[in-house]
Amino acid sequence: MAFAAGGELAAAVANAGGMGLIGGAYGDAQWLDEQFSLAGDTQVGCGFITWSLAKNLALLDHVLEKKPGALFLSFGDPAPFVQVIKSAGVALICQVQTLRDAQHAIGVGADVIVAQGSEAGGHGEKRGTLTLVPEVADFISRENADVMLCAAGGIADGRGLAASLMLGADGVVMGSRFWATHEAQVHPNMLQAAIDANGDDTIRSSVMDIARRLNWPDRYTARVLKNAFTDQWHDDLPALLKNQDDEADRWRKAWVAGDITTANTFVGEVAGLIDSIESAADVLRDTCTEAKALLSEHSKGLN
Amino acid sequence: MAFAAGGELAAAVANAGGMGLIGGAYGDAQWLDEQFSLAGDTQVGCGFITWSLAKNLALLDHVLEKKPGALFLSFGDPAPFVQVIKSAGVALICQVQTLRDAQHAIGVGADVIVAQGSEAGGHGEKRGTLTLVPEVADFISRENADVMLCAAGGIADGRGLAASLMLGADGVVMGSRFWATHEAQVHPNMLQAAIDANGDDTIRSSVMDIARRLNWPDRYTARVLKNAFTDQWHDDLPALLKNQDDEADRWRKAWVAGDITTANTFVGEVAGLIDSIESAADVLRDTCTEAKALLSEHSKGLN
Repeated sequence: MAFAAGGELAAAVANAGGMGLIGGAYGDAQWLDEQFSLAGDTQVGCGFITWSLAKNLALLDHVLEKKPGALFLSFGDPAPFVQVIKSAGVALICQVQTLRDAQHAIGVGADVIVAQGSEAGGHGEKRGTLTLVPEVADFISRENADVMLCAAGGIADGRGLAASLMLGADGVVMGSRFWATHEAQVHPNMLQAAIDANGDDTIRSSVMDIARRLNWPDRYTARVLKNAFTDQWHDDLPALLKNQDDEADRWRKAWVAGDITTANTFVGEVAGLIDSIESAADVLRDTCTEAKALLSEHSKGLN
Repeated sequence: MAFAAGGELAAAVANAGGMGLIGGAYGDAQWLDEQFSLAGDTQVGCGFITWSLAKNLALLDHVLEKKPGALFLSFGDPAPFVQVIKSAGVALICQVQTLRDAQHAIGVGADVIVAQGSEAGGHGEKRGTLTLVPEVADFISRENADVMLCAAGGIADGRGLAASLMLGADGVVMGSRFWATHEAQVHPNMLQAAIDANGDDTIRSSVMDIARRLNWPDRYTARVLKNAFTDQWHDDLPALLKNQDDEADRWRKAWVAGDITTANTFVGEVAGLIDSIESAADVLRDTCTEAKALLSEHSKGLN
């Protein structure tokens, strides 16, 4: 949700009863200031890509001064940041992709674990949400029942929320579904592409990171809608690296222009469950209403 | 569940109230005769690898004469088999890994769709169960509400069953959890390996198929427990192919001997949710009991 989740979306989610997060991503102080301003008096949280934040520690202090509701760290070791975040009285949410990383994050003091499956849009890893969530839930119930657990990856409606609760999650983190809202900062061509796509149309790949000259650790790939660019390069990364100068320029121009045949739409497998752009408040309300109805319906007649 | 799910396991599942299936796999008439004999008077179904069955059409007639409860086809186009199966009055279950394949299977006449996510043990594809199931459910409700939908991949207990019902499934198919039962035909070393493993310890790979000289279509890989063999070859398939004669022999001997450092344990990400060998009847009963309790508990106090 880097860039797409700005202050307007984060505040809209928070005002509707959720925890709204600004997608701080690789960390740009000026952009973050603008987004916190857009959120106004509404308290929101802020997410960072952990390995990137490690290169810019001053940014963490800068954001903590804004009294965020929570810090959300993904993709890397949260340990170096725990003390400063907790000393500021801010909740630490750690997003993990494996049981091992969940165990580590809990060990260093995470207040909330987000168990993110491979279905997710954007960066992630290989494990599926359906097994990662109950496995982390079992670990939490054995080791530290105070830690809260959220499911992420593949959740876009009340069905996903209700399913996550069954798996042992206390709540869910939804990205792509809020990405496709009026408040998100997304090119209209990419919104349309997400609506047109189904879940078969996505791919986990590294080509976008190579095209953006982002030095991601090997274990992480990003899920996007497949297009001519991924078709061309996904199975030939060495050739893409050889042509990186030209291709990076081409991809960047396409991104700005909203050319979805070259630049990639960052959305998860839930693209197949999204068929309209809604307000963030409507998404949140409809998701909860649907989950409640499902739970109520399926509990009828149980003996 | 090829080979592991013989007549004893299939009958135990059927007698406990489920639909028990013999894992007919690549198709060996003598083995199938033995397994149907072991099932005795209990009606069970039979599964086949579709692309393999296409090379041995006589086998389908042979099995249909045994009046199976259902034919379960996975991995390939079911179209050529629909007429003979339906003419025999046998239900056709098609396991699919994408929305596109679900649409095709429904179009040619499947009675039941099994939407299998990447979490599954053994062969499969890339999509996660958590998004594939509701997307197929939406298609079914629009196009042909008579088709039944089961979720597969990542389901090993009542949490997975209850979650699948929330996602829109009518039921679930469990493989790995029944693989780890007293009635399954599995080497004890592999059972122990599955119990010791967590969900991080699995990998989707093609090395086992190369080692077994099985000519699987490129789109499918198999999930197994990682070991020294996958560590050595997974990232260098051309070298494995060059050494196929020696490595095939080494892997086969290890399989027979139950040497889990070379031969691979075919189990899904639910390895992390399995901590004991149970009877099939206990697995089925506990799964249903847990799912009912979860649905009942979470529906309390809903407004």
